[in-house]
This record gives sequence, structure tokens and C-alpha cells, in this order.
Amino acid sequence: MTRINFSPSGKELYPIFHTNNDLERMHKVCSKTLTAAGLKQSDICAVTFGYHLFIAGLFYQGQLEAFGAKVIPLGPGESERAWKVINDYGVSVLISNPSFAVKLASKGLPTIRVLFVGGEPFSSVEGYAEKVREAFGRDITIIDSYSMALCMPVARSCQYESGLHIVDDFVYAEVVDPVTGLPVKPGEKGELVLTHLYKEAAPLLRYRTGDLTVIENKACSCGRSMTLPKGIIGRTDEMVKVKGVKFWPSQIGTILQGFSFATGNYRVVFKTKRGVDFVELFIEGSEYSSEDVEKLEHVLRRDTLVKFNEIIIVEKLEPGPRVVDERNTMPS
Amino acid sequence: MTRINFSPSGKELYPIFHTNNDLERMHKVCSKTLTAAGLKQSDICAVTFGYHLFIAGLFYQGQLEAFGAKVIPLGPGESERAWKVINDYGVSVLISNPSFAVKLASKGLPTIRVLFVGGEPFSSVEGYAEKVREAFGRDITIIDSYSMALCMPVARSCQYESGLHIVDDFVYAEVVDPVTGLPVKPGEKGELVLTHLYKEAAPLLRYRTGDLTVIENKACSCGRSMTLPKGIIGRTDEMVKVKGVKFWPSQIGTILQGFSFATGNYRVVFKTKRGVDFVELFIEGSEYSSEDVEKLEHVLRRDTLVKFNEIIIVEKLEPGPRVVDERNTMPS
Repeated sequence: MTRINFSPSGKELYPIFHTNNDLERMHKVCSKTLTAAGLKQSDICAVTFGYHLFIAGLFYQGQLEAFGAKVIPLGPGESERAWKVINDYGVSVLISNPSFAVKLASKGLPTIRVLFVGGEPFSSVEGYAEKVREAFGRDITIIDSYSMALCMPVARSCQYESGLHIVDDFVYAEVVDPVTGLPVKPGEKGELVLTHLYKEAAPLLRYRTGDLTVIENKACSCGRSMTLPKGIIGRTDEMVKVKGVKFWPSQIGTILQGFSFATGNYRVVFKTKRGVDFVELFIEGSEYSSEDVEKLEHVLRRDTLVKFNEIIIVEKLEPGPRVVDERNTMPS
Repeated sequence: MTRINFSPSGKELYPIFHTNNDLERMHKVCSKTLTAAGLKQSDICAVTFGYHLFIAGLFYQGQLEAFGAKVIPLGPGESERAWKVINDYGVSVLISNPSFAVKLASKGLPTIRVLFVGGEPFSSVEGYAEKVREAFGRDITIIDSYSMALCMPVARSCQYESGLHIVDDFVYAEVVDPVTGLPVKPGEKGELVLTHLYKEAAPLLRYRTGDLTVIENKACSCGRSMTLPKGIIGRTDEMVKVKGVKFWPSQIGTILQGFSFATGNYRVVFKTKRGVDFVELFIEGSEYSSEDVEKLEHVLRRDTLVKFNEIIIVEKLEPGPRVVDERNTMPS
């Protein structure tokens, strides 16, 4: 074991271990994803993730150096200085939170060709990619990735932007029913379960991530086929059965990020009306059009498979739980 | 070229380049110095230097990983959290600014066996090593190092604590007269001049560092012999000839760091009295004893070879230049 990173776990820090072999293999499998992202050794890359304690900064620095690109370890914050360095050195590849990237791009980043995003939901947020591309004011390749501190990398998209490909020469991914633990059918929502193929320090064996996703097996021009088309769409540990459908309330939060009128606060209330489930959704937001509401209804229905009986938009939501289950359930 | 770090140069950032070969060689030569410092692969190391933009954090992370020790990239600041991680994980090697190390040690760091210091003058400051050792409350090995962003590593002490050994399988060091550029005799003060032996990206060729030092050639049990016994003792670019002696005012600042009564502010005034040089030194400070002043006089005389005619300690020094030359020099 040689590198010890940490993952924040509440107020505590959870240790993440790597041997030198682990780091080497991690860099090697990432190299393929960098090629698939369209990177060249001549690229000048800047990483705005943190390098202190946590894993993302050193993870990118190491893989990009092993790939042979040129890498500037910017670190987070100090957007003025970051912006100046990126422009002074003609940085062509930016690795950043998407929200920070948009902030930097608002002042002009004419040399960026590829943007790696991470650290925030991205592919799962409707319309986010278009918004980011607009902020850059030109055609850029956006590479989304999904990793956990415990397992870097898990999945990364490629220049063909066909979803996040599982890095399947590093990790074996399954999607299971969160209740039974049995594999779901391809295309069905479930919990992502990960097994390390070669890791020496603290390997994961059928680790239940608690992350809700869909997996599909579909060949891509980049060579990979196991793909999470929308990345992570919610958490499984709060699954509710409603109207006979498995429903994960946190999906609502992910969906709302695609709607600028919504603050992100919501409350979903399950009731029984005339013996059947009745779902009310309260959303905090303002300055919305009727098209906004129609679009939201459509996306909620499409992505959750639940028909919401009432959607009520309020300017300010009373404090309280996000999920209220008032159903009269029969004792079984 | 693969890694681009920066060095602050006024308000600007000066770029520092490394190829992958450069990084590999840097790690290899540093490995020998880690062995000489008494490190083992079983050591758990924590680095409190910054990893963002600047060079020190990644420099230590890379060399310690290549050596095979366990490394926690703590980063600077957040002393509470740093202290907790160091104690929770039984860190045995701390890499830090000496002042930050003392701050951490004041709350107890019972597991530290070796302390690497850097980023501040250390070996050149009289009594600093003793003060640090006292703060740790037990016998620790203190390893001082001297590097510049442009050239990492230059010199590092070993567990025998006989001065800072030039890393002579990486860099060729000379000490020259700052005026003539000719080599000085061994043991004489002068300007450190560096030449990279193998560097691929931006190598230095007889680079004049502007740093004032003394070099000696003296075999040490660790195997090295070219040594900077006190590290860097001042800057050469402000040399003044006084009483026939080459004098570097910045040495005063270095010396004052060893005296807790002094704030570090000083003003040195050169005059002509009865045709000869007369030197007045004003020092800002308070709560000093007559022994303090005697000791200061002694150290100033010993280390600068200049006899100060008057040393005046004032509570508050008027703003103004550090060096005032009021001598009536004859036109030549």
C-alpha cells in the first residue's frame, strides 16, 4: 500500500488505499478511456479538482501523466487565476466540476476542446450538456465520468457521447434489484454492484453502491459496450413501491436539476384515495411557464414510470421530510 | 514534457516543466536521500505542502510513493483535521513547514519519528532545530532540504545531521564570487550556481541562484560529501562592501529568526566616521535580556564577519528601507 486518500463519510474520513500496482493499473486502464475521449499527447490539460486528502486531483494528474499529456495541477477555487493560466497556456483539455467549468467559460475559454466533468450529477440531468456547451460558445467534447472514492474509475463516456462506458478491464459491474439482490433485466433500473478485477489494496467484492442506474450492452465505436446510458439517477436505499412500480424519490431531485425555475426542494406525498395510491408532488420554484410544467410532467412520467396525480409548485416549501407516506397499508 | 508546475514570481506565475523521464529520475535520486534520512517502506508519511499549481506537494508524494512508503496527501491548512489524521493513522514521517509542524506538535504528535522541513529557512536559523525538537517532546530526526521550484531537489540533510548534502547525482553545484563569477575557496561565502546533470525539460546550465551559501567537501556516513553546512544564509544580489568585507544585509534577517524577542524588522545604516566605515543596526523587538543582546552581537559578528559599531533595539521601527548607505565615497 502506498497512497492513502480519504473519502468524507459524515464528519469522519474513510480511508482509501492503493498499492503502486493499483496506481499503475488504474493509470493504464484510464489511458484507454483518454484515447477514447479523443485526447492526444500534445494536449495541455488543467485539473481543477482538489489534490489534498481526497482522490480526484491525484487520480487525474497520474493518469494524464502516464498517458503522456501535459498536465497543470490547478486545484479548486481561485477562478481568476485558473482562468488566466488556462488562457495563457492554451489549455485544450479542462477537467472540472461542470458548474465551475461554466463559471470559467463565462469569461471565455477559446482553447478548450475537451471538457471532463465530474463531482456533480451531469448525464442524469436533462439538458445540462447543452447548457454547458452553450456556455463554451463552440463545439466541445464533454466527457462525463462516474467513480466513487472506493473505486476509481467505474465508468466514463467517450467522444461518441453514447453514455458512460463501464471501465470493464478494471471493474465488473452488475445491476440488481435492491430488495432481492437478484440481477435485473437489461434496461431495468436497479442498484449498481461493483467487483474489482485486480485491485490489491482493499478490493471490492460485489459491493452494493446504493446508486440507482440502468445498464445496457450496446457496442460503441470506441470499443466498449457495457454502458450506463444516464449515469447515476438516484439512490436505491429509499425505494418506495407506488402504484405497483418501484420508485426512488431521489430521482426527482436529479430531474429537477434540469429545470432552472426549481430550487431543487421538493416533497412527495403518497396517499390512499378510493383504495388506490395517490401521489402529490410539491416543488419549490418560481418564474415558470406552462411549457416548463408540461415538460417537467413529461420527464417525471418518462423517467420514474410513476403518474403524479398532482404537481403543485410553491414559492417556498415548509421545512420537513422529502418523502411523506400517508397510505393506509393493510397489515399483511 | 508532462507536468507543468508554477513558481510565483511577483504577481506572475513562472512555469516549471518536467518530462516523465525527469520525474522518474527525480524520484530515483530522492529515494537515496529518503534512505539516508532513515525512512523505511513501512513508514506512513503525511505531506502538508500544497499540491495545487506549486511543486512541493506532488514532489514529495511522487518520491515517497516511488520509494514505496505509504503517503497521505494532507495538503496545507486545516490543522485540526491534519492533527487528527496524523494521530489516527500513526503517521511516522511528517513533511511540513517547520512552523506548521511546531503548531501541530503543540497538541501532541507521539508517533512522529522523522520530520522533513522545508519552505522556510531552517538550518540557517540558530537554535531552530532545538526549538522544534523541544516542541515534539522526544528525539526526532529532522531533515532539512533546500530546493528551488526550478531545481528540485538541490540539497537535503541526512539522519547524521551534518548539513545539507548536495544531491550530486542530479545537480552540479558551485559557489562563486557574486561579482567576478569565479569560484570561491572552500568554506568561503558566495553565490550558489547550479547545473542540471540530466534534466530534459528546461535544464539549468550554470544557473546563478542569487542564494548566498557556503559549500564544504566532507565525507558523511551517509555516503555524500558535498554539503551546504547551514543551507542558504541570504541573498547575494544586495552585497555591500563594508570595512573591506563582503556583507549581505539579508543575513541579518536570517540571524534574527533565531531570536524570539525580534520581530524580524531591521535597518542597517552605513556611515563614514573619521574616514572609516561605521555600521549602525536598528532592530525592532521587545522583552529582551542583556544575554539576548550579547548573543545576538556574537552571532552577527561570527556569521557576517562585520563588526557592528552600534546595535539599537527599538520597539517600533519607522517604515523605510532595510539598508541605508550614507557613506561619502570618493569618486574613483
